[in-house]
Amino acid sequence: MAASLRLRGAASGLWYWSRRPRPAADLAPLRGVLLCSRSMASKTPVGFIGLGNMGNPMAKNLMKHGYPLIIYDVFPDACKEFQEAGEQVVSSPADVAEKADRIITMLPTSINTVEVYSGVNGILKKVKKGSLLIDSSTIDPAVSKELAKEVEKMGAVFMDAPVSGGVGAARSGNLTFMVGGVEEEFAAAQELLGCMGSNVVYCGAVGTGQAAKICNNMLLAISMIGTAEAMNLGIRLGLDPKLLAKILNMSSGRCWSSDTYNPVPGVMDGVPSANNYQGGFGTTLMAKDLGLAQDSATSTKSPIILGSLAHQLYRMMCAKGYSKKDFSSVFQFLREEETF
Amino acid sequence: MAASLRLRGAASGLWYWSRRPRPAADLAPLRGVLLCSRSMASKTPVGFIGLGNMGNPMAKNLMKHGYPLIIYDVFPDACKEFQEAGEQVVSSPADVAEKADRIITMLPTSINTVEVYSGVNGILKKVKKGSLLIDSSTIDPAVSKELAKEVEKMGAVFMDAPVSGGVGAARSGNLTFMVGGVEEEFAAAQELLGCMGSNVVYCGAVGTGQAAKICNNMLLAISMIGTAEAMNLGIRLGLDPKLLAKILNMSSGRCWSSDTYNPVPGVMDGVPSANNYQGGFGTTLMAKDLGLAQDSATSTKSPIILGSLAHQLYRMMCAKGYSKKDFSSVFQFLREEETF
Amino acid sequence: MAASLRLRGAASGLWYWSRRPRPAADLAPLRGVLLCSRSMASKTPVGFIGLGNMGNPMAKNLMKHGYPLIIYDVFPDACKEFQEAGEQVVSSPADVAEKADRIITMLPTSINTVEVYSGVNGILKKVKKGSLLIDSSTIDPAVSKELAKEVEKMGAVFMDAPVSGGVGAARSGNLTFMVGGVEEEFAAAQELLGCMGSNVVYCGAVGTGQAAKICNNMLLAISMIGTAEAMNLGIRLGLDPKLLAKILNMSSGRCWSSDTYNPVPGVMDGVPSANNYQGGFGTTLMAKDLGLAQDSATSTKSPIILGSLAHQLYRMMCAKGYSKKDFSSVFQFLREEETF
Amino acid sequence: MAASLRLRGAASGLWYWSRRPRPAADLAPLRGVLLCSRSMASKTPVGFIGLGNMGNPMAKNLMKHGYPLIIYDVFPDACKEFQEAGEQVVSSPADVAEKADRIITMLPTSINTVEVYSGVNGILKKVKKGSLLIDSSTIDPAVSKELAKEVEKMGAVFMDAPVSGGVGAARSGNLTFMVGGVEEEFAAAQELLGCMGSNVVYCGAVGTGQAAKICNNMLLAISMIGTAEAMNLGIRLGLDPKLLAKILNMSSGRCWSSDTYNPVPGVMDGVPSANNYQGGFGTTLMAKDLGLAQDSATSTKSPIILGSLAHQLYRMMCAKGYSKKDFSSVFQFLREEETF
Repeated sequence: MAASLRLRGAASGLWYWSRRPRPAADLAPLRGVLLCSRSMASKTPVGFIGLGNMGNPMAKNLMKHGYPLIIYDVFPDACKEFQEAGEQVVSSPADVAEKADRIITMLPTSINTVEVYSGVNGILKKVKKGSLLIDSSTIDPAVSKELAKEVEKMGAVFMDAPVSGGVGAARSGNLTFMVGGVEEEFAAAQELLGCMGSNVVYCGAVGTGQAAKICNNMLLAISMIGTAEAMNLGIRLGLDPKLLAKILNMSSGRCWSSDTYNPVPGVMDGVPSANNYQGGFGTTLMAKDLGLAQDSATSTKSPIILGSLAHQLYRMMCAKGYSKKDFSSVFQFLREEETF
Repeated sequence: MAASLRLRGAASGLWYWSRRPRPAADLAPLRGVLLCSRSMASKTPVGFIGLGNMGNPMAKNLMKHGYPLIIYDVFPDACKEFQEAGEQVVSSPADVAEKADRIITMLPTSINTVEVYSGVNGILKKVKKGSLLIDSSTIDPAVSKELAKEVEKMGAVFMDAPVSGGVGAARSGNLTFMVGGVEEEFAAAQELLGCMGSNVVYCGAVGTGQAAKICNNMLLAISMIGTAEAMNLGIRLGLDPKLLAKILNMSSGRCWSSDTYNPVPGVMDGVPSANNYQGGFGTTLMAKDLGLAQDSATSTKSPIILGSLAHQLYRMMCAKGYSKKDFSSVFQFLREEETF
Repeated sequence: MAASLRLRGAASGLWYWSRRPRPAADLAPLRGVLLCSRSMASKTPVGFIGLGNMGNPMAKNLMKHGYPLIIYDVFPDACKEFQEAGEQVVSSPADVAEKADRIITMLPTSINTVEVYSGVNGILKKVKKGSLLIDSSTIDPAVSKELAKEVEKMGAVFMDAPVSGGVGAARSGNLTFMVGGVEEEFAAAQELLGCMGSNVVYCGAVGTGQAAKICNNMLLAISMIGTAEAMNLGIRLGLDPKLLAKILNMSSGRCWSSDTYNPVPGVMDGVPSANNYQGGFGTTLMAKDLGLAQDSATSTKSPIILGSLAHQLYRMMCAKGYSKKDFSSVFQFLREEETF
Repeated sequence: MAASLRLRGAASGLWYWSRRPRPAADLAPLRGVLLCSRSMASKTPVGFIGLGNMGNPMAKNLMKHGYPLIIYDVFPDACKEFQEAGEQVVSSPADVAEKADRIITMLPTSINTVEVYSGVNGILKKVKKGSLLIDSSTIDPAVSKELAKEVEKMGAVFMDAPVSGGVGAARSGNLTFMVGGVEEEFAAAQELLGCMGSNVVYCGAVGTGQAAKICNNMLLAISMIGTAEAMNLGIRLGLDPKLLAKILNMSSGRCWSSDTYNPVPGVMDGVPSANNYQGGFGTTLMAKDLGLAQDSATSTKSPIILGSLAHQLYRMMCAKGYSKKDFSSVFQFLREEETF
C-alpha cells in the first residue's frame, strides 16, 4: 500500500513524522524515498536484536524498505524465518555490534535490555565508534539514561524509542515512536523508525521517550478505570449505556477510553469490549507499564495517587483471571454483581 | 444575540436540543420562535425558586423569552432585581405553586430542595393538579425519585434537570440540561429549558438526569487528577509540558482535561490554569458532586475505586486552601515540591 | 454460668460495665443481682422488635434474667419460639409500644429502623410518655439523631446502642454495647443491656454510640487489609509467616488483626483463617459498616482516604465470591497469584 | 548503665536477643559479658562505615563494649570525634576492609550502600576472605541480595541487619536488629549487634531482615493513617477523643498507633502528638521506607493497595510542610478544616 511521508508539525512546535495514506496527486512521497526507500544497493546493514511478537514484524518492515539485517535473538527459533529469507543471523549481541553500526533492540524488560547491552557478550563489548543504538523496549527511563552513559563512553550514540500501537500497528508499519536522545541524531533515527511507524516524535533528552510513553499509559489506565466506574455506576442508576456514553462524549467526561475504546459491551463495534475483551492491549502489559510509572514516580518523589491505585488494580486483575484480556476488561471486573 | 434552535440527534438515537450561533441566512430561528418566543400576551407565568449565582441568570433568560415570572428566594435580597423589573415576588414556595403551574427550582443542596418541596410552606402544600415541576438543582438521584413520588401523589409531574456549564453558560443561555422524567412530558420541559440552555438531553426515568450529571462529573474529576499526575510526572522526568500535552492529545491518554482544559500553567490560553486557577468550576463544587457520586455508589453497591479516592482528594484540597480555586488546581496541589 | 458484674472504669474516666468470670470468693455479683436479676415477680415487660440472628439470642438473655417480653418481628416465624416459651407476641411495633415502656430494637438497616419507629404502625404511633427506646441496630448516626428528635417530641427517650461481638457473643451474653443518649438515662439502659453484654460503654450524646462503632470498624478494616498486605508482601520476599507475625507483634506494626485475628492460615489457631474463613464477621457486614462510615464522612466532610479505599475493596470482595467469608479473607483475595 | 543480656524466645520458636534493664540482684549480665564485654585486650578491631545520626551512637556503643574501631565516613567531620577518642580513621571503605575483618555499614540509601561496597575504593576491593560484613542500612532487599552475591564471590559473608528504634534507641543501645543471612553466622553477628541493640532477631536468608523491616513499617504507616482517620471522623461525629481512644483500645480497632503512639494531641503524654509532632520518626523517613515497600511490591507483583496509598499520602505530606514532623502528624494533615 502506497503511503506518503511528510515532516509535519513544524508550525505547531511538535516535531514528528507522520505517514498518511497518499492523496492521489501528492508528490510528497519523494521525500520519503530519500529517507527510507533508497535502492537496496546503497544500504548498509542494520542490526536487530529481539525478534518477538513486536520485533518480528518491525524487522520485516525494515526488510521491505531494503535494509539488509544482522539478526540476534536469545531463542534461535525466532531467527529461522529471517535466516530463510537470506538475512544474516549471528550468535550474540556483540557479534551484531561488530557487523552493524546501526542497531535496534526490542526486548521485554529492563533486565533483558541491560544484559543485551552490558552483558558478557553484550553490544558494548564490540560496539564501533559512531554507532547509533536505538532501544525500542519499554523500560525504566533511569535505565535508559544509564545505558546512554555507558554507550557514550564507547563513542557511540544511544536513543530510547519506545513504541505505542501493538502488534497490529507493528505489522502495518503504523507504530508511534517516542524518541529521546541527542537532537542532532534524531534525523538519523527517523530514517529507520519511519520505516516501521507512521509517527516519530522527538521528546527531548535520553529517557524522555520512555517518560512520554509511561505518562501516556498511566493516564490511559486512569481514564479507562474511570470510564468503567462511571459507566457501571450510571447503568446501576438506570441509564442506558449507549446514551450515557453519548452524554459523556459530548461533555467534560469525554476521553479516548469513552469515545474510541469504550469498555462496555454493546456500546461500540470493533473494540475489544465487543469481542469478549480479546485482542487489544493486555492487562499484563498495562500492569507492567504502570509498574514503570510507579518506579519513576518513587524515584522522582512525584505523587501519583490515582496512578498508584490504577497500578494496584491491574495487578489484582492479573491475579483474578484477567491477565490475558484487554485492559478495558476492568469494566467486567467492576461489573460483577454482589450476590447474597 | 440571535440564535438558531434545532431538534437534533434523531438519527443518532440521542434526543436532545441544540441551539447554535445562527449562520447568516439561517431561517431556523422561526422554529425557536414557535417553541420559546411566542408573543408575551400568550404566555402564562412560570415559577422560579432559587435566584442564586445560577438561578439569577437562568431566570433572566426566561424573562428574555417573554415569560412572566413568579419569584421566591429564601433571601429577599435575591428577589429585588426581579421585583424592580416588574416580576411578581411571593413569600413562600407554596405561594409560587398557587400562582404558577410550571415551576423551576434551582437550589444548592438536597436538604434545601426537600424543604422547598415538602416543607411547611412548600410547593406541595398548594401545588395544582397537572403542574410541571422541574428541579435543576444537583442533588442525590434517590431524593429526586422520592420527590417525584410525592409530587405524583398530588397529581402533578416532577422532572429532574440538573445543568452543566457554570455561571458563564447560564448567562449566555448555553447550559446543558440532563433531564429525567416521564418521556411524554419532555417536550413541555424543553419549551422552558430551551430558553436557558443550548443542549437539552433526555436521559430516561426520574433521577437519570442527576445520574448522568454525577457520572460525567466523577469521570471528569478522575481524568483531571490523572492528567495532573501524568503531566507532573512527565515534567519531573524531563519532558516539556507543552510537548507532553501534545503527545497525550494525539495518543490514547487524550481527554477533555488534557486537550480542552489543561491544568498546567503555560500549556493553554483561556483556561483557569492560565489565570491562577481563578474562575471555572470550584473545588468545593467538585467535592460536593463527588459526595453525591459516593452516596449513589454506596446505596447501589457499585464499586468506584478511583472515584472514591478522587472524592477524598478534593475533600482534602478544600481543607488546604484550594476551596475557591478551579478544580484543575489539583495540578498545583500535587506539584508542590518536597523540601528538606 | 455464674458471672460477676462490676461497675468499672470510674478511675480511668471511661464509664462502662464489665462482667467477668467470677473469682472464687467474689461477692460483687450482688450488685449485678440488684441491676439485672431481680425476681421475676417484680419485673415489668420489655418490648423487643427484630428477632433475627442477633436479636434472637439477645432476647433470650433478657428472658434468662427474668424479663417478660412483648415480641414483634416482620417475619412471624421468628416469633414462634418465643410464643411457645410463653412470651407475648403482638402484630405491630405500635402494639409493642402500647404494652411496654422499655423497648429494644435490633434491625438490619436504617430503612427498617425508620419504618419500625415512624411507619404507619410504628412505635411512635402509640409510644407512652417516659418510655425508654433503645436501638441496637447499626445504622447511620444521622438517622439515630433524627429518630431521637421524633421520640423526644412524644415525651419519650431514645438511645442508640449498637453492639460489637457477633452471634457468639450475643449467645453468651458477652456483647459490647456502645451507648449514645442523655447521660441521666444511661443507668436505666444499663439495667437491660447488662443482661445481654459484658461491656456497656457510655459514649456521649445520641448518635455517638453509632459513631464509636463505625470508627472502630473502619479502623479494624484498614488494619486488617494492612496486615494482609504486609503478610503477603513479606511471604513473597521470603519470610516465614509465623516469624513475620511475631516480629510485627513485638514491633510498631502490631494490631488486633495481626496479634489476635491473624488472616494468614497457619499462623494462629481458633480464628477464621484457620478454618477456611468460615464463621467470624462476614465481608458483607464489614462492607455495610464501611458504607455507614463513608456516609458519615461525606456528610461531615471528613477525609477518610484509606477508609474509602477499604470500603471499595470489601465492596469488590462481595462481588468476587467472598461475601459470606470472614472479613480476614482479604488475605486470600490479595494472595491469589498472577498466572501467565 | 548496667543491663542484662539474655537469649530469649527459644521456647516460642523466635530466635532473638533481648536485653532488659537489670533487676537489682540479677546475675544474668555475666552472660552478656561473655558475649559482648570481653576484656579489651582480647578484641580485634571492628570496621564502621557511616557515622551519621544513627551510626555515631551505634559506633560509640561498640566502643563502650571495648571494641577498637576502624572508622570511615564520606564527611571527614563525622570522624573527628572518634579520632579524638583514639580510634583509627582511614580514607576509604577499601582501607577499612584491609584492616578489619568485621565491618558494620550504616548508610542512608541503596545507592550509597552500593558505592561503599562496589565503588572504586569500595570494601570489595580489599575485603579479606572470611570477613563478616553487616549492613544496617535500610535499603531495597533486592540490593541486599545482590551485594551478598558479590561478597560471597570474594569468600566473605554478608548479612543485612536494618534497625528499628530511632536515634534515642541507638543512644541507649536499645535498637531492634532484624537480621538476614546464613544462619550459621548469626551468632557472630549477634556478638556485635547485641552491643548496640536489645533485640536481635533472625529473619531468614539474606534480604529478609530488610523485608521484615519494610513490612512492619508499611503496616505501621497504614495503621497510623487509619487511626488518624478514625479519630478525626469520631471527633467530627461528636465523640470525645480520649474516650474514643479508650474504646478503640479495648476493641478490635486497637493497634500500636492507637494505644502507644496516639496521633491526637491531648490523648497521651510523652508522644510526639503531645509535643507538636516534634521528635519521633520523621515523615520523610516513613516516605522513604514506603518507597522501598512499593519497589519490593512492584518487583514481586504483590498487591499493596493501602500500602501504595499510604506511600502517596506521606509523599504529599513531605511536599506540604510536614517533612520534618513525626509521621503521626498525619492526624493534623487530615484535621485541617474546610473553610468557605
